[in-house]
Amino acid sequence: MKLSQIETPALILDRRRLEANLARMSERARALEVDLRPHMKTAKSAEVARLATAGHSGGITVSTLKEAEYFAEHGYTDMVYAVGISLDKLARVAALQSQGARLALLTDDVEVAGRIGERAAALGTHLEVLIEVDIGDGRAGLAPDSEDLVEIGRALDGAANVTLRGVLSHAGHSYGCRRVAEVEAVAEAERAGAVRAAERLRAAGLPCPVVSVGSTPTAVHARDLAGVTEMRPGVYMFNDVFQAEIESCAHSDIAISVLATVTSRHRGRGESVIDAGGLALSKDRSTAEAPRDVGYGLVVDMACGDSLPELHVVRVSQEHGIVAAPAGEPGFAGLAPGSRVRVLPNHACFTAAAYERYHVVEGGDQVVAEWPRVNGW
Amino acid sequence: MKLSQIETPALILDRRRLEANLARMSERARALEVDLRPHMKTAKSAEVARLATAGHSGGITVSTLKEAEYFAEHGYTDMVYAVGISLDKLARVAALQSQGARLALLTDDVEVAGRIGERAAALGTHLEVLIEVDIGDGRAGLAPDSEDLVEIGRALDGAANVTLRGVLSHAGHSYGCRRVAEVEAVAEAERAGAVRAAERLRAAGLPCPVVSVGSTPTAVHARDLAGVTEMRPGVYMFNDVFQAEIESCAHSDIAISVLATVTSRHRGRGESVIDAGGLALSKDRSTAEAPRDVGYGLVVDMACGDSLPELHVVRVSQEHGIVAAPAGEPGFAGLAPGSRVRVLPNHACFTAAAYERYHVVEGGDQVVAEWPRVNGW
Repeated sequence: MKLSQIETPALILDRRRLEANLARMSERARALEVDLRPHMKTAKSAEVARLATAGHSGGITVSTLKEAEYFAEHGYTDMVYAVGISLDKLARVAALQSQGARLALLTDDVEVAGRIGERAAALGTHLEVLIEVDIGDGRAGLAPDSEDLVEIGRALDGAANVTLRGVLSHAGHSYGCRRVAEVEAVAEAERAGAVRAAERLRAAGLPCPVVSVGSTPTAVHARDLAGVTEMRPGVYMFNDVFQAEIESCAHSDIAISVLATVTSRHRGRGESVIDAGGLALSKDRSTAEAPRDVGYGLVVDMACGDSLPELHVVRVSQEHGIVAAPAGEPGFAGLAPGSRVRVLPNHACFTAAAYERYHVVEGGDQVVAEWPRVNGW
Repeated sequence: MKLSQIETPALILDRRRLEANLARMSERARALEVDLRPHMKTAKSAEVARLATAGHSGGITVSTLKEAEYFAEHGYTDMVYAVGISLDKLARVAALQSQGARLALLTDDVEVAGRIGERAAALGTHLEVLIEVDIGDGRAGLAPDSEDLVEIGRALDGAANVTLRGVLSHAGHSYGCRRVAEVEAVAEAERAGAVRAAERLRAAGLPCPVVSVGSTPTAVHARDLAGVTEMRPGVYMFNDVFQAEIESCAHSDIAISVLATVTSRHRGRGESVIDAGGLALSKDRSTAEAPRDVGYGLVVDMACGDSLPELHVVRVSQEHGIVAAPAGEPGFAGLAPGSRVRVLPNHACFTAAAYERYHVVEGGDQVVAEWPRVNGW
């Protein structure tokens, strides 16, 4: 099948771009002398994970227990669930581990840390736990100098069915940076903060073999990761318009796109309607604050080339996307009904989440494979 | 199972609220003397459709061909696909109709109208087509006085394998209204515009048996629908915080919520983290311009009551929701890790789309059923 023949909207993955992105990040990890534990929250695909882990330890990161179960079924046995654990999820974790996989958990909470050992014992499982450290993102995690850090470390280390595995941070605030120098500074702050937390645990006589840092922008731009043992970027596999805007990649590195068909044209206002709306593109507006705001996606031609004028998806409703030139650009009569376009996403993780599968191409318009995704919880 | 026992995040549907919402809209349709053709784009569930069509003709509206196929499998034979058709989708429409269902289509394009008859003949099917009329929404459709309207009507009526079924409008701009009087004015403009388009077709000697109008706000507030034959609201089944803000409903009419568990607490900044983030709640920001902006959702207690202080999901990342009191409200120490809350969605259609099923309750905390949904395309 060719791209001109498949049903739209559809999620297209260009394997050549994917592999180039993976190779670049693998090289980064090697140069920085850390392991690469790719975050599968973006791709959610065993086929992509196979390519992304090649040449590294084989460990991966997941964002949901459903991902963990899916990847365990596909042979992955070394996983980190990089979202704070609640005790009510431990039965499912124990069931997963009873099948042979290991799923390291995360917490920043004294009470959870104090009770996780007894729950693990009751469930007949052994848990590895990382302590979440916040280096300025303000989402979750403890400050590296927090008093709770050592208290949590002691609670975990003292529990019979728990191993304290180390510390983990996610520099999500790197997404707020607009220049490479800013990302470099966040990356160094993340490195220093995570290492500081690890050293405090060690100084208290606690083990801390793992120092794990995250985020694609900091992985791309970190100058040095001394003291860090692994990094967990995810969106680098696909990239997106937002990552291009903050200089994590170029537009030509964006590996996924939404294939859409034009359903009507409104010449008077220079607009066309495509069959990819808010569900097919997501309502993520990551580029709203970026240097160039592309609305709900950047519209490109069928070869992901630049034969079209600059066109954005300027409005969406559930199944309608309105395509127009950005305000102030020269007038455009609209795209002809029946013609097809590809839309580069604002935020790959959210756009991909609406689809059950990738239609895989290799640069051209021939669909060479369909790769399933795992969604939901 | 009780709500305290199921995995989170989960989508909860309160059947009592649903049935009250359905009864209210059924009564509206009867009072306005129009048929109710409920739009299933929000609920995407055969169980909900069964309840929503009770007492009406049994016809429904769908937003994707996948919905059409799903509802056809569940016995629905009279459907309108209320998104502009592209010719490349006709083979799938023909396949669906060959199983016995009828799926009326929509267009506003002269070229599509000119070619749809020959495609229908080639596919061995007969198509019913509505002409889309734009009453100020600016998404898709022709102005009621457009020259193309009659041209499209003639093209459709003149094609051997096509029946011109009528006109259809969607007053999506009613979502921009902030007061009931404004919605009433939009509803009257929509009625008058759709009827005007129908009369122009009839004056040209063309058939126009159906005059179909849409949108929950206008369905709730229309004073009169003289000349209209059917209405197609959808979100009224569930309602959401945005619909409450524009006075389509009360908060106590919101029938769906996301059940979430607190994973960590940050007392210093009065924030808690829940396991429902941007994917579980959607990134829809419908209330951004509403009188009260609830961020990514309004947090309520397990009974959907008001025992908690006013709390919003103020930030999200993929699997994290940050819960806090709105800016300027009194300080709040945060919710305890392990506790559970329900989140009323900004926009029901988008939040529900992340889930494969509803956990159904009847006012209380007992899950009495699981109803599947159909997502994707």
